[in-house]
Amino acid sequence: MNQVPRVVIAGAGFGGLTCARALKRAPVEVLLVDRNNYHLFTPLLYQVASALLDPGEIARPVRQLIRPLRNADFLQASINGVDFAARRLLTDHGPIPYDYLVLATGAQSDYFGNRSIAEHTLGLKDLDEGLAIRNRVLSQFEASRWTTDAAERRRLLTFVVAGGGPTGVEMAGAISELIRLVLRKDYRDLDTNEVRVVLIEAAPHVLVQFVPSLRQAALRSLERKGVEVMLNAKVETVGAGSLKVAGGDEIPAGMVIWTAGVKASDIGGATGLQLARQARITVDPTLQVPGHPVVFVIGDLAGAKDGEALLPMLIPVAMQAGKHAAACIAEMVGRGGARAFQYKDPGIMATIGRNSAVAQIRGFHFSGFVGWVIWLTVHLINIVSFRSRLVVLINWAWEYLFYDRPVRIIVRARD
Amino acid sequence: MNQVPRVVIAGAGFGGLTCARALKRAPVEVLLVDRNNYHLFTPLLYQVASALLDPGEIARPVRQLIRPLRNADFLQASINGVDFAARRLLTDHGPIPYDYLVLATGAQSDYFGNRSIAEHTLGLKDLDEGLAIRNRVLSQFEASRWTTDAAERRRLLTFVVAGGGPTGVEMAGAISELIRLVLRKDYRDLDTNEVRVVLIEAAPHVLVQFVPSLRQAALRSLERKGVEVMLNAKVETVGAGSLKVAGGDEIPAGMVIWTAGVKASDIGGATGLQLARQARITVDPTLQVPGHPVVFVIGDLAGAKDGEALLPMLIPVAMQAGKHAAACIAEMVGRGGARAFQYKDPGIMATIGRNSAVAQIRGFHFSGFVGWVIWLTVHLINIVSFRSRLVVLINWAWEYLFYDRPVRIIVRARD
Repeated sequence: MNQVPRVVIAGAGFGGLTCARALKRAPVEVLLVDRNNYHLFTPLLYQVASALLDPGEIARPVRQLIRPLRNADFLQASINGVDFAARRLLTDHGPIPYDYLVLATGAQSDYFGNRSIAEHTLGLKDLDEGLAIRNRVLSQFEASRWTTDAAERRRLLTFVVAGGGPTGVEMAGAISELIRLVLRKDYRDLDTNEVRVVLIEAAPHVLVQFVPSLRQAALRSLERKGVEVMLNAKVETVGAGSLKVAGGDEIPAGMVIWTAGVKASDIGGATGLQLARQARITVDPTLQVPGHPVVFVIGDLAGAKDGEALLPMLIPVAMQAGKHAAACIAEMVGRGGARAFQYKDPGIMATIGRNSAVAQIRGFHFSGFVGWVIWLTVHLINIVSFRSRLVVLINWAWEYLFYDRPVRIIVRARD
Repeated sequence: MNQVPRVVIAGAGFGGLTCARALKRAPVEVLLVDRNNYHLFTPLLYQVASALLDPGEIARPVRQLIRPLRNADFLQASINGVDFAARRLLTDHGPIPYDYLVLATGAQSDYFGNRSIAEHTLGLKDLDEGLAIRNRVLSQFEASRWTTDAAERRRLLTFVVAGGGPTGVEMAGAISELIRLVLRKDYRDLDTNEVRVVLIEAAPHVLVQFVPSLRQAALRSLERKGVEVMLNAKVETVGAGSLKVAGGDEIPAGMVIWTAGVKASDIGGATGLQLARQARITVDPTLQVPGHPVVFVIGDLAGAKDGEALLPMLIPVAMQAGKHAAACIAEMVGRGGARAFQYKDPGIMATIGRNSAVAQIRGFHFSGFVGWVIWLTVHLINIVSFRSRLVVLINWAWEYLFYDRPVRIIVRARD
């Protein structure tokens, strides 16, 4: 009997999902494995955290997304490692045999071994964390309204974002807008001079990936939106109610959001494979694991190189790598071989909030309102399904017209 | 100095919110207190539980809703009791002085002292519980897909709703539709004959509040939607993986949703006041607490009577009582007195799902598609704000056209 080869894809993010889709017509069966039952549109996660969007607007059930793929199925399970000799993916649902394996489990926050940061900051890497930030921001505002201690009130109204990359810039801008455009109306007695949104970056610039003119534009835009930007500032320790910057004073703060470090998910370490920087798995130019030709690594988890540098942890990289791995596997099933992966850079962008973004696309640079229209267009086109696009568009239009945040409710599922 | 009298309203549900709104022009200051920062549109909570709506679509921040009320403020706090002598509402934010107090803390599940039911069933009284049901239904489906034990798979695919009132009927109908119209498409190998949605009711009828012809129509509609209805059946005990009906066999079940009992919130007992049936506070015909003329009780918490019977725990009762309490307080501030409360019954309705509802309005009886159109119209008109109405309408239209549930994602906020 000629069994159809089984491709197991670990991770249903942009890389894994794209890979599954690209295998639609290949003579294989595909099993997507993820610890969540949904695919997350991560570029808009900060909008859930800032009470603009509901979780259902940026998350789609994996099973719904793979319905058109007749050769694909899904398993919700946590991934613990790989038994390369026996060709099994190890999960909390038991070992899963594979003929080809695609590792695409993405990245997580990196605290650089600093326990105080790991314990006392909030991350923004998944939906649970986004909702936790939203609950915390709103709860602190509520608490600040009824505190009679002025110092405590100012502490509750101090929101710190560590890390001046795209995520940190977007998050700081969004929190500042939430406060200045929306919560100000909910809290009539609020003195906005008591509110601080602080963005802390260890480098001398925000958005180091961008050209200097766009870094400057982003910095000015952040300041116009009321964000205090501290450059050349490294977070040393974080406590329950404050943080300390190296060589600086203690800053009382209600919450610290950590976007300053990112590394590959733990699966890299668990496999015992050779790791590159950021705990990313060292791969051949084909994205295969050296010595394990049936195993591909894609997305943030892959230590794929462009010349000497590792490829950035970006969605286009993950999606292109997903397509590449699928094409290689289809070739290999037909007794062919894997080709080298070549990344085509479509450009990068980051938004600072309402009416302001920076975009750097093949030598063209955009900022301000024009940058924002480009950002908005690209994101609307890319949101996974039509329905999300429509609802998200309505929410955005609503906020744009009425300066409102529709979903600023504090809620958690009871366990 | 002539201090403005302070009206404290405990609870921001339909009763409390209506009362605050009705006091808009009264010469008083109003403080709404609730343990959540949102007002919940409870009639659609079962749609969150069945993955049709997102939390933000049926919940609005209280602060947003009271923005137009210049004399109102909000405090998020849990309510523990009342010190009538000192005129203070006791909360986890300390005691809150009042000149007038309106108790409107609503109702909770009643397990009639049965520990096994309290421990092993899921309620549907607040948003956290609705999300917990959603997570559980979706997780059981995922688990059932990968179970090789046939008995365990059938257990995971058995969903029991206890209680044949409007909430139970709506919930059972919605789960059955979620499974038969949507999840069936997500799980290609699912044998729908293995799925059981069971509605258990101790009385000989579902929807006992309705006339016999509408009860019959609802029963037929439930059965057409694939719900097994067990009448004259009383839940005796519930275990981790099964339940037992009095005089019957053990039924293996993945989950049991409890809608069979409801009683007033604990504040009734905590005040030491005289309680009527369902732990509701006994009140004068004016809705004042006997001996405490500045304290009103409204909504599900109030043991208000219509003739001999207690008024039903319904939103129109709570809203009319809220308006009544506001009018009485305005009179009393102007040295007048309180009048007796008179409930005007606008009719009752319940939906069984897509295309089917029953409505009983002033001697007119509607069922099937006509009943459903009436149900839909009334609920759309009543959803609190324009924006919710629009988004909810889109979601409903989407589901109606495409038989889909947009938000069947399993998510919980990280603490």
